[in-house]
Amino acid sequence: MTASKAFHPPTRILMGPGPSNVEERVLRAMSAQVVGYFDPSLLEAMGEIHRLLNATFETENRATFPVSGTGTSGMEAALINLIEPGEKVLIGYNGFFGDRMHQIVERCGGVPIRIEEEWGKPIRPEQVQEALKKDTGIKIVALVHAETSTGVLQPLEDLREIVDRYGALLLVDAVTSLAAHPVGVDQHGIDVCYAATQKALNAPPGLAPVTFSERAIEKTRNRRRKVQSYYLDIALFEQYWGTNRFYHHTPPVSLYYALLEALRIVEEEGLEARFERHRLNHLALIAGLEAMGLEMLVEPPYRLWTLNTVKVPEGVDEATIRGRLLQEFGIDIGGGLGTLKGRVWRVGLMGMNSTPNNVLLFLTALERILLSEGVPCGPGIAAADEIYRKPFQGGSRV
Amino acid sequence: MTASKAFHPPTRILMGPGPSNVEERVLRAMSAQVVGYFDPSLLEAMGEIHRLLNATFETENRATFPVSGTGTSGMEAALINLIEPGEKVLIGYNGFFGDRMHQIVERCGGVPIRIEEEWGKPIRPEQVQEALKKDTGIKIVALVHAETSTGVLQPLEDLREIVDRYGALLLVDAVTSLAAHPVGVDQHGIDVCYAATQKALNAPPGLAPVTFSERAIEKTRNRRRKVQSYYLDIALFEQYWGTNRFYHHTPPVSLYYALLEALRIVEEEGLEARFERHRLNHLALIAGLEAMGLEMLVEPPYRLWTLNTVKVPEGVDEATIRGRLLQEFGIDIGGGLGTLKGRVWRVGLMGMNSTPNNVLLFLTALERILLSEGVPCGPGIAAADEIYRKPFQGGSRV
Repeated sequence: MTASKAFHPPTRILMGPGPSNVEERVLRAMSAQVVGYFDPSLLEAMGEIHRLLNATFETENRATFPVSGTGTSGMEAALINLIEPGEKVLIGYNGFFGDRMHQIVERCGGVPIRIEEEWGKPIRPEQVQEALKKDTGIKIVALVHAETSTGVLQPLEDLREIVDRYGALLLVDAVTSLAAHPVGVDQHGIDVCYAATQKALNAPPGLAPVTFSERAIEKTRNRRRKVQSYYLDIALFEQYWGTNRFYHHTPPVSLYYALLEALRIVEEEGLEARFERHRLNHLALIAGLEAMGLEMLVEPPYRLWTLNTVKVPEGVDEATIRGRLLQEFGIDIGGGLGTLKGRVWRVGLMGMNSTPNNVLLFLTALERILLSEGVPCGPGIAAADEIYRKPFQGGSRV
Repeated sequence: MTASKAFHPPTRILMGPGPSNVEERVLRAMSAQVVGYFDPSLLEAMGEIHRLLNATFETENRATFPVSGTGTSGMEAALINLIEPGEKVLIGYNGFFGDRMHQIVERCGGVPIRIEEEWGKPIRPEQVQEALKKDTGIKIVALVHAETSTGVLQPLEDLREIVDRYGALLLVDAVTSLAAHPVGVDQHGIDVCYAATQKALNAPPGLAPVTFSERAIEKTRNRRRKVQSYYLDIALFEQYWGTNRFYHHTPPVSLYYALLEALRIVEEEGLEARFERHRLNHLALIAGLEAMGLEMLVEPPYRLWTLNTVKVPEGVDEATIRGRLLQEFGIDIGGGLGTLKGRVWRVGLMGMNSTPNNVLLFLTALERILLSEGVPCGPGIAAADEIYRKPFQGGSRV
């Protein structure tokens, strides 16, 4: 047996689909010694996490807390708590994570019904309306607000009204939008919304913030049979997070510390300023990429500010370029998933990674690598810079 | 909206049922910047985690990795992957966590069959043998090696032979024993074993190490229907941890760093020395408590070294004593769960918390508080000290 060496991860600029880099303040907060799960100090911190999560989700829901798992556990918790066997769930299928919802619905005995749309396009409200009209008895409409696989932003306007007409609940995946794009849980009448800590919140992966409306909680309370998962049963989470304080499981205390500090940073910057910063850096990146002669997968109104999908030019091996970005510049970007494998790069600008510095460095690095691989491309910096030279509207420029 | 204050948890000596304190080295390792889930450095670290987990479980299993959730997620993953609807599972019910297994088996459509035993006593092999004989077709026998609610150590000898006679699989909960008591997965022919990071491993909560024998993996491969949970599907974990490297979910990278460092500490100390250290401090604590006139719940051969259940003396309010230990000494111990609520204290000596310093301080603190509450008790220190004065057999004394 060879003795193990201490692990010192390399320094990366995480500009992929997530995780994003974690704020130094968050890393320090996380490294505090742990306390017990009923420690008065922890219960107080949990109260703050609840308040700050609600502010970020833009809701006043009572049932808001982080599930003790990564983003997918949030998706699973949201779906399996709402769905009873045999119930129909309408799912927007325009990317990888819509497909994941489909799989989870099937596994828990629900009946998934798909609205199919091209990967790279959002689901239109008319499609939801048509599907609800055609297939009666749909209990839940599930859409992905920010499709991490395609870079598409799903508009949430008008959905509540449509869904209400058919007595369904609205479930929204905000994994890659929370704390970067307005999610507006109360404004859009979202019944269940979940996210993850490792995207625009800049905390480490391992927690999935979720929020349930009263109507959604009501549905979980009236279940005929228990939720299939004990670990992800929202009623048991509520007993620990609520005033009962019943032991459910030992929560990942260190990740609670991290999430609290990350949420404090969001509060300090202010949501509006944070949204504007994400928008601006996204626009600068796109301007640069387009000036270089590259094309975006998604049409302008539906582009995520956090995740930019760039088409790989004809004849270019996307993995080579990605590998060189990592090797030569320490920049980690993502490749395509599913039907987009080999066809796009996914460039993330999430939370603290959404900065002019990262945009300018990335454009420079990509240009240099493409040229050295013999791929013709123009300079992108000037176009990006032009965006930044416009009157500034808030947020940090570094 | 009031701005949130930075969270600085108080310093605690965690001598309850877990979490235990986390090693400084582990906290520092955890606070390194995160990397992506396919980063070559992370994949290398995962290889080390696999090797060191196998050494700690004492197995050569291929399917060994941490599930991305706390201990209960490990329990759930172990059970739901093995069980198909309608299958019978024999569960040792002699504590809180046997009951939890029962609930999980029920929720996933299995048929739980209980071996009932008094809380505070182990399940006897004859009971397992009888139950398997009486109720044919049992597919899985599930026992808790270290019952955190009662302090009972479940002997694992002879079980494999009995279970084999009936063609069943053996599933063992080692949450509170791994890295403190010998678990011996291969020696005892355990098919599925799971643990948690926040007990004797002294890493933060949030990961559940699991290991599956080839026979267990075979059963999961031959399932007629998919595992009900996508998040906890072991086949999908294997695809990420194995050579395929398929994306399943974004793992809690920081907790991987922490676990690796915690396992390195275990390797440096050596398993045998670590076991002996836990045994010695446990014996000293018991000697002290008994000298004080207190009684243990569990008979000597079945006492856990990691978790000591002390009977609360007649007429004493256990919560008062516990509250004063926390307030006046920063010592966090546990109360009773379920049928033992109000009747016992649970005193943990796990990993780095299993030291003579902690034993001596705890005995002193408890004596002072009991006396000031008017509870008669003798001094315990001398008796504990006598254990330590015997020829030393390895491990650290501080």
